Amino acid sequence: MEKTLSVNAGSSSLKWQLYEMPEEKVIAKGIFERIGLPDSVATAKIDGQAHVRKQKIVDHLQAVLLLMDTLIHFNLVDDFREITGVGHRVVAGGEFFKKSALVTPEVLKQIKSISHLAPLHNPANAAGIEAFLKLLPDAVSVAVFDTAFHTTMPEKAFRYPIPNQYYEKYAVRKYGAHGTSHMYVSQEAAKILGKPVEELKLITAHIGNGASISAIDGGKSVDTSMGFTPLGGVMMGTRSGEMDASVIPYLIANDPELNDAQDVIDMFNNRSGIKGVSEVTSDMRDLQDARLSGNKNAILAYEMFVDRLKKYISQYFGVLNGADALIFTAGIGENDEDVRRDVVQGLSWFGMEIIPELNVRGAVGDISTPESTVKVLVVPTDEELVIARDVEKFKKELKK
Amino acid sequence: MEKTLSVNAGSSSLKWQLYEMPEEKVIAKGIFERIGLPDSVATAKIDGQAHVRKQKIVDHLQAVLLLMDTLIHFNLVDDFREITGVGHRVVAGGEFFKKSALVTPEVLKQIKSISHLAPLHNPANAAGIEAFLKLLPDAVSVAVFDTAFHTTMPEKAFRYPIPNQYYEKYAVRKYGAHGTSHMYVSQEAAKILGKPVEELKLITAHIGNGASISAIDGGKSVDTSMGFTPLGGVMMGTRSGEMDASVIPYLIANDPELNDAQDVIDMFNNRSGIKGVSEVTSDMRDLQDARLSGNKNAILAYEMFVDRLKKYISQYFGVLNGADALIFTAGIGENDEDVRRDVVQGLSWFGMEIIPELNVRGAVGDISTPESTVKVLVVPTDEELVIARDVEKFKKELKK
Repeated sequence: MEKTLSVNAGSSSLKWQLYEMPEEKVIAKGIFERIGLPDSVATAKIDGQAHVRKQKIVDHLQAVLLLMDTLIHFNLVDDFREITGVGHRVVAGGEFFKKSALVTPEVLKQIKSISHLAPLHNPANAAGIEAFLKLLPDAVSVAVFDTAFHTTMPEKAFRYPIPNQYYEKYAVRKYGAHGTSHMYVSQEAAKILGKPVEELKLITAHIGNGASISAIDGGKSVDTSMGFTPLGGVMMGTRSGEMDASVIPYLIANDPELNDAQDVIDMFNNRSGIKGVSEVTSDMRDLQDARLSGNKNAILAYEMFVDRLKKYISQYFGVLNGADALIFTAGIGENDEDVRRDVVQGLSWFGMEIIPELNVRGAVGDISTPESTVKVLVVPTDEELVIARDVEKFKKELKK
Repeated sequence: MEKTLSVNAGSSSLKWQLYEMPEEKVIAKGIFERIGLPDSVATAKIDGQAHVRKQKIVDHLQAVLLLMDTLIHFNLVDDFREITGVGHRVVAGGEFFKKSALVTPEVLKQIKSISHLAPLHNPANAAGIEAFLKLLPDAVSVAVFDTAFHTTMPEKAFRYPIPNQYYEKYAVRKYGAHGTSHMYVSQEAAKILGKPVEELKLITAHIGNGASISAIDGGKSVDTSMGFTPLGGVMMGTRSGEMDASVIPYLIANDPELNDAQDVIDMFNNRSGIKGVSEVTSDMRDLQDARLSGNKNAILAYEMFVDRLKKYISQYFGVLNGADALIFTAGIGENDEDVRRDVVQGLSWFGMEIIPELNVRGAVGDISTPESTVKVLVVPTDEELVIARDVEKFKKELKK
């Protein structure tokens, strides 16, 4: 029986999901956390049961070793060679990668060479790839890029209104993110709507701790809210999203703790968004508690969060000149009924209305009234599955 | 007969318009250009005839002296004391000024103290005020702020999603611009629509070399595209508008000519927008010529320009949850029928359609089809008149 691993390696974490393919059956999944830090921990979920193992994990290679040990221990594989494919999430693909790629030394080099586009993610993604290459050298190794789905954007959308030389010399442009998720939920939405995705105009709202909104025309991304890096677009857990750039030199000139542009960008990335305004939390669940208990900063942070979502969703109604459906996905999009309610109520003029009884935590599918001319869907995202499927495609091709 | 001057002082220019008030009759108008530079020139338009005078003009005070000389020479005033009021456009009012203000030494000081919000404009505006105070010390002197109309924005709109301390300590927030114009054209639009402005939701598109879009609910600005300074929002003649801020440290690290954040912001302000992408011109008329003759960069610049306008206009449909009308004004908004056509055609789903025969250069009023559920208006702006009217209000109050 052939098995495929879907992997998402972060700087100090490694998430994995083991599939039986082509059945698309999840056999087990888990995460290694605090890799290279004190108190590392490995968690695996097998047959609905969680197994937690606390032990020192010095690097990604050791995490992969532990993973293999776990899979053998629980009889999930008899031999490593059963794992015939490993798919890796890679955040930034730059202009190199318009679709998933078989990992070669050249591909690995390119992934590292565009680390400036996702400084927190690409080096970690590459480390994950290298660890698996060492332990499973015969498995088909595939890189699946978060940006690939957005490479269909027209030039008017991906270019910035700055001198052309900065695009030509340094590839400064909009790349977007969460592409795998936007693609997956748009395709699932088409099934729910009972129409080919090629005939639909969709707006996908991937709202998690990181968040991006996309305009999808006939199955192709034509615009998305994240930009050169994942800082752009809507307000997020700790990220500002869109900013008037002229704030930067002003803060450098005035604030003694901000010495250069990188300091300000670090502040925009790590201390802003919900965290910066609420002063309580970067987590939407905690924000809701604080807001409902009357915390003024939390109320403002929530209002701003909804305001920015509404603005980008409205923008993409403009880009698409109308839409068939708005799709909520990811942590907040799937689970926060207040955010969905407030966004949709605030845009009722666009032809959307939610059925309150359907708008509950864990809702899946169409939650809009029959009268809604723009449907509102909740579609759980599944980037891991897309990654496993892409590995499967390469396996088939290689067998030919 | 009482006369009022409406003044707009730039760093090397001074525009003026002389009114007979309260009749609101324009007696004469003109501009001093290249003040303090070689080849200064004064132009005045009196009874439909232009008078051009080339002579050295060293500073704003000399320009005002020349203006008085001109007014006497052409018998427009017999005595300086006939000019009982002077109104000055001031670009940034910060959080101090929620409406126009009688100029006092304290007000003048405050205007200078917020020069960082409009570094090119506020010092020049203050120089203009001081020149007139010296020559016409008895006239009522009024400062009319471009930001005042936007002080009704709710906190969720004017605050940035960054730590609160930067707002509390340094007043970093959205201020907007072109407020006098947005206010004037929204009030004129209400007359055309035959409804009180209090009952209307309007989107005003002030599109000139600088450009901003506003959402106006019941006569009050609730959102606008320009931000902390006039860099934010839509793409402009030489300004980028909205940018992913993470581009800044990346360019500083990579481009040898960009040494710090201020260098990049200067590039965003002066070498970007239509100029940066077209590589031909910052002027929409020249861009149209280049585009129609097939210049690829010009075509891209035009497409991006229209794209950004559509996005902000769509956004404000979201902010207002629907609108009664879209209003075009200022240089491009009033005179460029292609921009109006392409923006409105691209947003036809919103319920707007233009009658092609009405969409001509110089069109004024409603240019939309009777079926349009959102009307499309062209309203010539008149900031000078608003300034003269505000002076009139203060004159009346002081006479009481």
